[in-house]
Amino acid sequence: MPADHGRFDIAPGFRAAAVACGLKPSGALDLALISSEGPCAAAGVFTTNRVQAAPVLYDREILDRNPAGIRAVIANAGCANACTGERGMADARQTAALAARALGCEPDQVLVLSTGVIGRHLDMEKLTRGIEGLATGSREQGAMAAARAILTTDTRPKTAAADLDADGGHIAIRGFAKGAGMIHPGLATMLAVVTTDADLAPVPLQGALKSAVSRSFNRLSVDGDMSTNDTALLLASRAARVTLDDAGVRAFTAALTGVCVSLARQIARDGEGATRLVEITVTGGRDEAEAHVVADSIARSPLVKTAIHGGDPNWGRVLAAAGYSGAPFDPDRLTLDFGAPDEAITVVRGGLPATYVEAAASALLRRDPAILRLDLGRGTGEATVWTCDFSAEYVAINAHYTT
Amino acid sequence: MPADHGRFDIAPGFRAAAVACGLKPSGALDLALISSEGPCAAAGVFTTNRVQAAPVLYDREILDRNPAGIRAVIANAGCANACTGERGMADARQTAALAARALGCEPDQVLVLSTGVIGRHLDMEKLTRGIEGLATGSREQGAMAAARAILTTDTRPKTAAADLDADGGHIAIRGFAKGAGMIHPGLATMLAVVTTDADLAPVPLQGALKSAVSRSFNRLSVDGDMSTNDTALLLASRAARVTLDDAGVRAFTAALTGVCVSLARQIARDGEGATRLVEITVTGGRDEAEAHVVADSIARSPLVKTAIHGGDPNWGRVLAAAGYSGAPFDPDRLTLDFGAPDEAITVVRGGLPATYVEAAASALLRRDPAILRLDLGRGTGEATVWTCDFSAEYVAINAHYTT
Repeated sequence: MPADHGRFDIAPGFRAAAVACGLKPSGALDLALISSEGPCAAAGVFTTNRVQAAPVLYDREILDRNPAGIRAVIANAGCANACTGERGMADARQTAALAARALGCEPDQVLVLSTGVIGRHLDMEKLTRGIEGLATGSREQGAMAAARAILTTDTRPKTAAADLDADGGHIAIRGFAKGAGMIHPGLATMLAVVTTDADLAPVPLQGALKSAVSRSFNRLSVDGDMSTNDTALLLASRAARVTLDDAGVRAFTAALTGVCVSLARQIARDGEGATRLVEITVTGGRDEAEAHVVADSIARSPLVKTAIHGGDPNWGRVLAAAGYSGAPFDPDRLTLDFGAPDEAITVVRGGLPATYVEAAASALLRRDPAILRLDLGRGTGEATVWTCDFSAEYVAINAHYTT
Repeated sequence: MPADHGRFDIAPGFRAAAVACGLKPSGALDLALISSEGPCAAAGVFTTNRVQAAPVLYDREILDRNPAGIRAVIANAGCANACTGERGMADARQTAALAARALGCEPDQVLVLSTGVIGRHLDMEKLTRGIEGLATGSREQGAMAAARAILTTDTRPKTAAADLDADGGHIAIRGFAKGAGMIHPGLATMLAVVTTDADLAPVPLQGALKSAVSRSFNRLSVDGDMSTNDTALLLASRAARVTLDDAGVRAFTAALTGVCVSLARQIARDGEGATRLVEITVTGGRDEAEAHVVADSIARSPLVKTAIHGGDPNWGRVLAAAGYSGAPFDPDRLTLDFGAPDEAITVVRGGLPATYVEAAASALLRRDPAILRLDLGRGTGEATVWTCDFSAEYVAINAHYTT
């Protein structure tokens, strides 16, 4: 498991930098450039929202056409460039072209990420000046600057790293992400950029990313809202010069999953208004998909999340949320534990209230992370999702976001 | 359209009364009895949650067995009698038997409703004393007392009435309901009891109730949580002695739908922490079901509901919520209006921002009700759902409900 808060850099073969170009009214860093020395293999996983932002449409097109020749990602916060029509697409294209000119590469070697308010056009004047700044030195260097530049309502940057020994060589995986609201499985207002020096072609790279995302970012819910801009990108510089066989790709995928899970947990913990991470594990499902559906239903329930916020061991809400998930379980076989396995308190056994000390159950819900484990008693399917508690601060943050 | 706040009574042929038996710590009315002079035809629509409370299971059984012979409904607040296993079923049965004895009828002529905390057993001692009180005169008479007795976190009773002239006779429809949290289509912690003096057999009565519920309580979302106890009951005393032909049944169903829509709107407006009603209409769907799916997705979005709370015309969140509903619309054909048709402001046209005055759009979102109308540009399907804005007070109410 990679450390959530360790020192963060970028994978060999990459550089990162960021500037403040004025897209954030606060004057904070808001434009990041991640670039590689040579062409990279790249993979992407995108929002499944029917309404897709211009940079999502643009990146899909580029990755279809040129998945082995990517040189850079240019990412801005402060404006999502979503619901902006043809002008939005032109702005995304123009952003890539400006970055390409600064780097001395082709426009179709540059991917674009945007996050922020929907329905406003990018301020191309500020962006142009920003990209000049990234090229000429008025920039802040390093991956941490890039990780900070893409934040919106986040309170802290999210970074994760993993290292892998394979075939006598060493492979680095380095990721950073943003996301605090409009977060729900299927990807949400979250952006993640993971770099690696592994030598992987686009197809296995895409396979590794899809697998990692399915058990990390797609297991994440802050508010059930799925964004128009969600994107996870994985870029491989091949600088490690280690070729991976099938077992190596599996090991790489596992390490990548660890990085993405760490980022997903950091996003959940930093959910808008959140005071702590909530981890919900459902076991005993007919299969993993069924366990996931039930865990997701619990993670979406505002009543469960407000109860956890208050340390209220109101397990009836957990059972009710499981009950409307659509999974055809037998209520009389449910077991619900609060807390990690080694110190868990069983609050429901066989669908009925167990005997427990309310204050002790409440104390477990006040831990960070708060852990809930529900067994459906049907099979061996298991899934874990991450969310956060739900506080009044969430409302305060979201009632006046654009105005 | 029936009045939301008119004088309220019960339909001819029925009586209502309530007592405070101590199930609510506040000492407020918490036990209601609605009874008829003779056997009634009855219909019920129940939660689709996999976890069903004992009174739901009990009522289903009684309505299967004896749909034309119902004499009473006994309803308590303060305890949901859900997740209470066999003892919960025995308690529901015992409650019906006690009410039957007080009324001089058979136990299988009595329906039971419960609402309140999940996972606790009914205090049968208090209930027994309460039912004695209902029989012996230490009761408060009238339908308004019954409507108050079933409230939990509601701030006010919900009642509605409609009158119908048919075949030279007069038919009365009178309903009351409770519900403020754990409210979502498919029915939620809501209870509704509608009485009528129409002469309808159980089968057409059930048809009328199902139809009315599908366009009223099933179009209602406060927090997306579906309860274990949701129940809507319709009792017909036949006291009007008017026989309805097919056209009469259609007119009755329309009037009943009006009563249920009025109750649903009152529930939404009184949603936990709500400051106003929100009405979301989706038009231009391929069919009504598609329009409903999109409207429901918008009504569930905490980001949309916090924006409305703040009067923030953040229409991007509305489009994003429509986009993850799963409906395969073309984003370039979307039109979004704020406000009622006669004073609407178009904020999105052809998927792109329209030109409008932000302060005027904000003012429309601050109205009660706040009205949003989204056209999908695909067909003639239309659906309206009701919800409420989302305030910090919701969290305050729900963080410490049981403790």
